[in-house]
Amino acid sequence: MTASYPVDERNRVKRLGKRATYDRDAIYPILDTALLCHIAYVVDGQPYCTPTAFWREGDTLFWHGSSASRMLRAQADGIPVCLTVTHMDGLVMARSGFNHSINYRSVMAFGTARRIEDSAEKRHAMDAFVERFFPGRNAALREPTGQEVKATSILSMEIEQASAKIRATGPGDDEEDFALPIWAGVVPLRTVIGAPEDCPRLPAGLVPGADLAAYREGRVVDEAFLETYRRGYADE
Amino acid sequence: MTASYPVDERNRVKRLGKRATYDRDAIYPILDTALLCHIAYVVDGQPYCTPTAFWREGDTLFWHGSSASRMLRAQADGIPVCLTVTHMDGLVMARSGFNHSINYRSVMAFGTARRIEDSAEKRHAMDAFVERFFPGRNAALREPTGQEVKATSILSMEIEQASAKIRATGPGDDEEDFALPIWAGVVPLRTVIGAPEDCPRLPAGLVPGADLAAYREGRVVDEAFLETYRRGYADE
Repeated sequence: MTASYPVDERNRVKRLGKRATYDRDAIYPILDTALLCHIAYVVDGQPYCTPTAFWREGDTLFWHGSSASRMLRAQADGIPVCLTVTHMDGLVMARSGFNHSINYRSVMAFGTARRIEDSAEKRHAMDAFVERFFPGRNAALREPTGQEVKATSILSMEIEQASAKIRATGPGDDEEDFALPIWAGVVPLRTVIGAPEDCPRLPAGLVPGADLAAYREGRVVDEAFLETYRRGYADE
Repeated sequence: MTASYPVDERNRVKRLGKRATYDRDAIYPILDTALLCHIAYVVDGQPYCTPTAFWREGDTLFWHGSSASRMLRAQADGIPVCLTVTHMDGLVMARSGFNHSINYRSVMAFGTARRIEDSAEKRHAMDAFVERFFPGRNAALREPTGQEVKATSILSMEIEQASAKIRATGPGDDEEDFALPIWAGVVPLRTVIGAPEDCPRLPAGLVPGADLAAYREGRVVDEAFLETYRRGYADE
């Protein structure tokens, strides 16, 4: 496997190419610090953008097909998709409207979606989905029923091409603007974990277990997603 | 204007329709608590999913066209798009893998993108973009140059149809699973504002102004986005 994804017209970053990279080393961590992605696909010429949960194994992405039932019905397999992950890290306040920006980390991944049809393979993916985010949790869960496996759709794609764009710096003002008497800088944003809320029907005495150890109150969730990813896929 | 968007095959929510709504009263607040959206569009049969900043005026959505240059080059105007906004509010931990879920608020909006060509209209939109998020900031900023107006692309669309999906509750376990000895509940997630970081070249003595008053450290950013929206568009 080469270090970078191949680049052509499909995935070349057109604007602000200096922020772009095609390297797996930059792309993987942006994916592995996330749970939510947005997937673009086309049905009868109409584009759809569907949010869903996803995870990565090597160069394969998996996602939960629930909301993609539209996609499934349109085409059994082989549909081209673009799976995008974006972390919004800050509001960049400049001295001119034009130079305002956002600090972000984003990945666009291109490939061909296929639905996992084999029920053993699907069962494996369902377990991997839980395990990737909550290592050890499967062992405590009630086993999936045949009906549940049937009702679940997991889609996957090999990443054929991808690109990442990252902005992580202060305002890039015009040289003559830096002295202007207006506050400029970055307003950082972080998605943080709150205190766990018990299910109202939780039996007395139960507390979050080791499978939730990464999700400590006050922690940035990116870190928890990366930590649980590395625990589940340590061999990579 | 009717209270709900028209529903047909394009925007009908196919799965878990009980979580769905087509009412403007539910859809607008999901849009107005956000800055980031993902836009799906098609170029030569290939779907793209591009993240960008957006805002709403009535039933019109505007977004920054930077990364959409691909879209602009493909079709001058009249391209169908799906603009999606998703807030991820929590991880829903159930007693079975199948019943795990995510708490979220999301909107899919459908329409036909057009590029704002008229430079006065574009200039107005550029100002509105800053003003919508940072009320009062334009007055202090260096004026845009003609070149900057030229280099900026703003796209807009009338929302022809939209749908919202909301999940905001604890685990929906099977009745016989509630008694199982495993912690279940919600791990809440919130995107919060951090302490402002000065531009390294900020003149001494400058501090964030009234235009940033909504962005108080520790506050959930959704609230700041909604507050600034309401200040800018109070007449709605």
